[in-house]
Amino acid sequence: MTPTIYILNGPNLNTLGLREPEIYGSATLADVQTRCEAVGSEAGFEIVFRQSNHEGELVEWIHQARDAAAAIVINAGAYTHTSLAIHDALRFFGKPVVEVHISNIHSREEIRHKSLIAPIAAGIIVGLGPIGYELAITALKARLR
Amino acid sequence: MTPTIYILNGPNLNTLGLREPEIYGSATLADVQTRCEAVGSEAGFEIVFRQSNHEGELVEWIHQARDAAAAIVINAGAYTHTSLAIHDALRFFGKPVVEVHISNIHSREEIRHKSLIAPIAAGIIVGLGPIGYELAITALKARLR
Amino acid sequence: MTPTIYILNGPNLNTLGLREPEIYGSATLADVQTRCEAVGSEAGFEIVFRQSNHEGELVEWIHQARDAAAAIVINAGAYTHTSLAIHDALRFFGKPVVEVHISNIHSREEIRHKSLIAPIAAGIIVGLGPIGYELAITALKARLR
Amino acid sequence: MTPTIYILNGPNLNTLGLREPEIYGSATLADVQTRCEAVGSEAGFEIVFRQSNHEGELVEWIHQARDAAAAIVINAGAYTHTSLAIHDALRFFGKPVVEVHISNIHSREEIRHKSLIAPIAAGIIVGLGPIGYELAITALKARLR
Amino acid sequence: MTPTIYILNGPNLNTLGLREPEIYGSATLADVQTRCEAVGSEAGFEIVFRQSNHEGELVEWIHQARDAAAAIVINAGAYTHTSLAIHDALRFFGKPVVEVHISNIHSREEIRHKSLIAPIAAGIIVGLGPIGYELAITALKARLR
Amino acid sequence: MTPTIYILNGPNLNTLGLREPEIYGSATLADVQTRCEAVGSEAGFEIVFRQSNHEGELVEWIHQARDAAAAIVINAGAYTHTSLAIHDALRFFGKPVVEVHISNIHSREEIRHKSLIAPIAAGIIVGLGPIGYELAITALKARLR
Amino acid sequence: MTPTIYILNGPNLNTLGLREPEIYGSATLADVQTRCEAVGSEAGFEIVFRQSNHEGELVEWIHQARDAAAAIVINAGAYTHTSLAIHDALRFFGKPVVEVHISNIHSREEIRHKSLIAPIAAGIIVGLGPIGYELAITALKARLR
Amino acid sequence: MTPTIYILNGPNLNTLGLREPEIYGSATLADVQTRCEAVGSEAGFEIVFRQSNHEGELVEWIHQARDAAAAIVINAGAYTHTSLAIHDALRFFGKPVVEVHISNIHSREEIRHKSLIAPIAAGIIVGLGPIGYELAITALKARLR
Amino acid sequence: MTPTIYILNGPNLNTLGLREPEIYGSATLADVQTRCEAVGSEAGFEIVFRQSNHEGELVEWIHQARDAAAAIVINAGAYTHTSLAIHDALRFFGKPVVEVHISNIHSREEIRHKSLIAPIAAGIIVGLGPIGYELAITALKARLR
Amino acid sequence: MTPTIYILNGPNLNTLGLREPEIYGSATLADVQTRCEAVGSEAGFEIVFRQSNHEGELVEWIHQARDAAAAIVINAGAYTHTSLAIHDALRFFGKPVVEVHISNIHSREEIRHKSLIAPIAAGIIVGLGPIGYELAITALKARLR
Amino acid sequence: MTPTIYILNGPNLNTLGLREPEIYGSATLADVQTRCEAVGSEAGFEIVFRQSNHEGELVEWIHQARDAAAAIVINAGAYTHTSLAIHDALRFFGKPVVEVHISNIHSREEIRHKSLIAPIAAGIIVGLGPIGYELAITALKARLR
Amino acid sequence: MTPTIYILNGPNLNTLGLREPEIYGSATLADVQTRCEAVGSEAGFEIVFRQSNHEGELVEWIHQARDAAAAIVINAGAYTHTSLAIHDALRFFGKPVVEVHISNIHSREEIRHKSLIAPIAAGIIVGLGPIGYELAITALKARLR
Repeated sequence: MTPTIYILNGPNLNTLGLREPEIYGSATLADVQTRCEAVGSEAGFEIVFRQSNHEGELVEWIHQARDAAAAIVINAGAYTHTSLAIHDALRFFGKPVVEVHISNIHSREEIRHKSLIAPIAAGIIVGLGPIGYELAITALKARLR
Repeated sequence: MTPTIYILNGPNLNTLGLREPEIYGSATLADVQTRCEAVGSEAGFEIVFRQSNHEGELVEWIHQARDAAAAIVINAGAYTHTSLAIHDALRFFGKPVVEVHISNIHSREEIRHKSLIAPIAAGIIVGLGPIGYELAITALKARLR
Repeated sequence: MTPTIYILNGPNLNTLGLREPEIYGSATLADVQTRCEAVGSEAGFEIVFRQSNHEGELVEWIHQARDAAAAIVINAGAYTHTSLAIHDALRFFGKPVVEVHISNIHSREEIRHKSLIAPIAAGIIVGLGPIGYELAITALKARLR
Repeated sequence: MTPTIYILNGPNLNTLGLREPEIYGSATLADVQTRCEAVGSEAGFEIVFRQSNHEGELVEWIHQARDAAAAIVINAGAYTHTSLAIHDALRFFGKPVVEVHISNIHSREEIRHKSLIAPIAAGIIVGLGPIGYELAITALKARLR
Repeated sequence: MTPTIYILNGPNLNTLGLREPEIYGSATLADVQTRCEAVGSEAGFEIVFRQSNHEGELVEWIHQARDAAAAIVINAGAYTHTSLAIHDALRFFGKPVVEVHISNIHSREEIRHKSLIAPIAAGIIVGLGPIGYELAITALKARLR
Repeated sequence: MTPTIYILNGPNLNTLGLREPEIYGSATLADVQTRCEAVGSEAGFEIVFRQSNHEGELVEWIHQARDAAAAIVINAGAYTHTSLAIHDALRFFGKPVVEVHISNIHSREEIRHKSLIAPIAAGIIVGLGPIGYELAITALKARLR
Repeated sequence: MTPTIYILNGPNLNTLGLREPEIYGSATLADVQTRCEAVGSEAGFEIVFRQSNHEGELVEWIHQARDAAAAIVINAGAYTHTSLAIHDALRFFGKPVVEVHISNIHSREEIRHKSLIAPIAAGIIVGLGPIGYELAITALKARLR
Repeated sequence: MTPTIYILNGPNLNTLGLREPEIYGSATLADVQTRCEAVGSEAGFEIVFRQSNHEGELVEWIHQARDAAAAIVINAGAYTHTSLAIHDALRFFGKPVVEVHISNIHSREEIRHKSLIAPIAAGIIVGLGPIGYELAITALKARLR
Repeated sequence: MTPTIYILNGPNLNTLGLREPEIYGSATLADVQTRCEAVGSEAGFEIVFRQSNHEGELVEWIHQARDAAAAIVINAGAYTHTSLAIHDALRFFGKPVVEVHISNIHSREEIRHKSLIAPIAAGIIVGLGPIGYELAITALKARLR
Repeated sequence: MTPTIYILNGPNLNTLGLREPEIYGSATLADVQTRCEAVGSEAGFEIVFRQSNHEGELVEWIHQARDAAAAIVINAGAYTHTSLAIHDALRFFGKPVVEVHISNIHSREEIRHKSLIAPIAAGIIVGLGPIGYELAITALKARLR
Repeated sequence: MTPTIYILNGPNLNTLGLREPEIYGSATLADVQTRCEAVGSEAGFEIVFRQSNHEGELVEWIHQARDAAAAIVINAGAYTHTSLAIHDALRFFGKPVVEVHISNIHSREEIRHKSLIAPIAAGIIVGLGPIGYELAITALKARLR
Repeated sequence: MTPTIYILNGPNLNTLGLREPEIYGSATLADVQTRCEAVGSEAGFEIVFRQSNHEGELVEWIHQARDAAAAIVINAGAYTHTSLAIHDALRFFGKPVVEVHISNIHSREEIRHKSLIAPIAAGIIVGLGPIGYELAITALKARLR
């Protein structure tokens, strides 16, 4: 059976490509999804790719992933730094989580230096642009083998 | 008229019994609800028992409780530590609030030591497991008499 | 074409007039809306006036405002102090934002002294009561001319 | 054999009923003792109820409890926040400890927000008034069964 | 009798229009005074408009205002962040005080984020440019009615 | 009836005159007592003068003072900075408390800069040597008249 | 030759008796001066009694005192907490300084808990009301003998 | 011409495979080098792979890289958290730097949460094990194209 | 005359051998005393070996030691971290003090990292188990020669 | 035309030579002025040398310097650490500012370690004694050429 | 086979006997080595005694010790407080480490109060002078038996 | 005999003229050496001018300077902020040390605001560019006379 990877995106990521392109680049979230599906397919994964601006909806998708997915790739946007609820849901998930950030959060404001997700992540990829998602899938392929 | 108690549960509590059972025990939220309804009924209370992963929904249920309930028992999960909005709604509620936590938040990570709800709670019950909900109802029975 | 101003209200502001009237006064949010529409109309603005208890919904209204509005007036309530997601959405908005608070947040608890919105606001009006909304519209009139 | 519960009270609790009755209520410590003995007897416990203003004496009673008691209910008063020695003694005790506070320490001064006992407590009951002791006995009954 | 409003300006505001015009704009303090007198006159106020670089002189003008003025609008410049003496004088004043800042102090250095005046201000207007003074007069008109 | 003043001395004050005389002077505690009794007698007070190295004993003397004394003068020595229990007892006392320190605690180590007694003291006299006790009696004479 | 004591008062103390009488009492600064002159005369001191709202003027009076006075009694008001310049001037003075505060600064806001003068004061008298000045003169009489 | 990537390893990484294998895995640094050379070769890069326990030597290799390399991949080990000199050298380097950590530094001790390299890194890969080096090469391939 | 060494033990050390043996080992305090007396005798010292759970009693034994002992070895247990009174007594003692801890306080909770005794100790021996007492005696032998 | 350098001295510097000579040396401010005029004349500068104990006067001299001087050398004494108003005036000045301190502020109390002037200074000379002023003039000569 | 103990000394310890003799005494490092070899020989240990001013060299000696030594005694000098690399190497070492300091680091500057080595040390000996090395060997003899 | 001055340069200063020329200027370290030798020669000093990227090597050069030099001028680069070992070596040196920084460290990142060398420096020259070295030599000439 093809294992599934949930790729979850948090608040404001639906504006990717428009919002501060000098930081985030010009690729849209649909572009990222297309690339992830290509890389995922090549790696033998089913990709479920979603975005929500609602903390509660992200929590619920993580709950669903418990049965439906072998791993989660998550870019929780601003909720990375404020949502303990997402942290709890991911801890409950119990399978590998890779945290991705498109921009380098460590060269931005103080409040973005601390991730509430990082302590329970299997791995973290920061600042490499949208390719970070693809590297996360590659890493999961190696890990889930 | 039978007074009503709202028992509100926050994010991830729908996974009770599955999530970290060594911390939270094996009782599900449905089990807790059954027990609360039994104890509530014995104490002469109508029990309204709900769970949401959405901060905004919890805020709105607290608004409803202003007309509908004599007291609130709340286990706000991770929102306990991050939601000033729930704090504001409970302060607006104006009637007794009992804060419950199943696990001992003070023996866990630093971020869980501070509750934004505690300063406006009538009482707080921590770490005693699901029985904490029942004790909260008992305490409210004494208080509302 | 008449420029539009989005006036967005955050959690618990639907209870205005009832909640802690000694702090917030007795005007309801509908009263505020009526006054804003009058002042807006006089100033040559279309007013879109909304309230939500959901962080994600506020984020999405700000996304909509990007095409639909010339400016935003926002009283984000408790989310002022906890929502980095709203901060990000407003930064993405890119047009003038005026932050309004009915009460003086600086004479209340420590946690309310720091606004995550303030650093990207064009202006901030605090503690003047509901008239703060009207002053914000006046200020935007001068600025957008 | 009837199991014994030590109920230990720290400094200034001998003044209960006189000291700041708007915070602590008008019940005296003797009243609390009477209630605890009643509830304890009903629950099948022998109750040993003591108060001391001396940190060292509390430490020694906890040492005695190691052989003599199945559980401790402790309201350490101000020593809750300053006594690492009592923390060490309770950790040594090794059986369930329930921490009780009559008033809501989290709505008082900063120094009272941190309990040195909490990290090793089985449970904590705060702000519910003298009934907190009774709930502690009830909780221990469930736990020790 | 026409009520009087004291409009007091602190250190370096005599350089307005010259100093960092990209932050403060090109209007001089005399321009601001002219606008305030116009708006004040329309609102039925006598305006006393002053500037000093001396903390002690500002303190003394506030003392005078106690008999002479119905309200104070104050832009204390750098003393906003360092003068507890001005805070004390304004608290003693006992009538409405509106704090004005031309630039957005919350988007500048950390030291400018905390105002010693804010906790005792009736209202605060930040970052809207010189029009902030006029809005302060408008707000006082509503309040003093 | 002659009103009584309790003069209570904390840990290590029995060594006065021997311990660090360059800081505390060469007068012994007996010398201080003699002087206090003289000044007290002249002022129309009965003086009860005691010293203990035991926190609990000081707490209990303060409890006794509630019935027996019109005021307390306290030099709690090192317990000034570590005993919340003495703070609680003094708050319960409810009548005037004057805190005395022989040396200037503010020119010594950081830990001695913060007094837990100060917030509830009627007055504080620091660094003036043993005459501080006498000034405290004088101040109480004025206050209790 | 009669030794002189400078009694220096800082900002806002010219409003004594009017400003927050529930904190500072109803005696005016002139009343305090009269009392100090009486006590000083009895103790064999010439009293120079002054008040200024200007930090620089207080610094200069302290410079003058170097030749003219045997001791300084200073109530620096708000400058107590913000003026390192007055600290430096008093350190330069080199003779005994007694710091006086009419109200209990330790039961007020955090910012008033730390005095920049205290580390170099010979003694400190806090919270005893205007009689604190008189006690300071008495203490200096003992010390200068 | 084949572009060169410097892969630099800091203190204790020569013990890889032996040191805390439950954290770092059983691959030795030679294994990592072999893998990097394979991936690098495939990607069209010359790989220069080095390890030093000397901060100064790492600084000098980075200086050399300025002429010799198109990018640096660096796992600075403990110097990540203590070496401002390496930060300065990398900033001087001026071409892309990817920071790699084999273990998840954010789930370890506090001191390892802050990287002095991160603010000037183009990207950061954490916790994915030795494959992190390979992903870094892949990311640089995309970036340098 | 044989010089005397006071060996003083603080709270909970009477439980040595029972309490957390994986941290403190299985030797009882009586065992430690026996060993100390043997080593002391060999080194030409009289040993006075005591334990108390009372801060005040420890303070008083240190006072006695001033006349009776040439040096103190102290394991103040939890009072190490909370008792400024013991610090003061030891400073008054004026002769060599060696601080001993059986376990490594620096690898335990934060609160145990700071010793109030350390700044005035001649030496400190931590984490070496009960042999630490013996080494302290040996060190004092060398020092007192 | 001969360029002018303003050399401004802050509070207590009029006491130079008298105040703490072991820290500041025995040269008076007049001696410093004489030396500066000599060095300035040699370097082709007109020297304007002033001292004030008033923060506001220093602010105003800096305003004057904007037209009258090519550079400022400032030793702001204690205002270095407390005056944001002088910082603002110097930033407004816009031409080179050299900050001078006679003593080494970094080996004194914590509060003197942070200069509010330093961030906008072209250069800073600390602890070299009065010759620091002369070096500042020399440095400005090099810079203004 | 005779077990070996590595005794490693960090930066500036080559100057022992010359540097601040009032703190460190007049014994040179060669004297300490001679004494250690004598005590070691008596205890049945081979002693390898080294000093380096280079962090990297110390790291490498610790790596060598992994095969060559049964225990390490380390006085890392200033690197105690700044070197996480030495901490990591010692953790990797995996056998007993005793940390020695000649002077009492806890009575010196703040920065010397925290040791990065302490959390992984088997024991710590501080402030007893060069004899501390000898006691460390004695302790290891007991431990390694 | 001609006295010698050691001029020591820390990590990355070998890149001077290339690294961030907008901060450090275009002069190379060889240029600085040439200028220092000229100024030194004129002032009657032998100049020993060195650079190292190795903390340990800088420590050892300072040890050598103890016999070989009358003073040290040091620009320790990034080690200024992280090396307690260099601090210790310089304290041991015992003769005048002048700390030089080419750029204004106080207008850069927080971590560069605190110098570990400053507390033991005779003088500090910051932000004046390479001429700072020359001024340091001039100051030493005055001091060593």
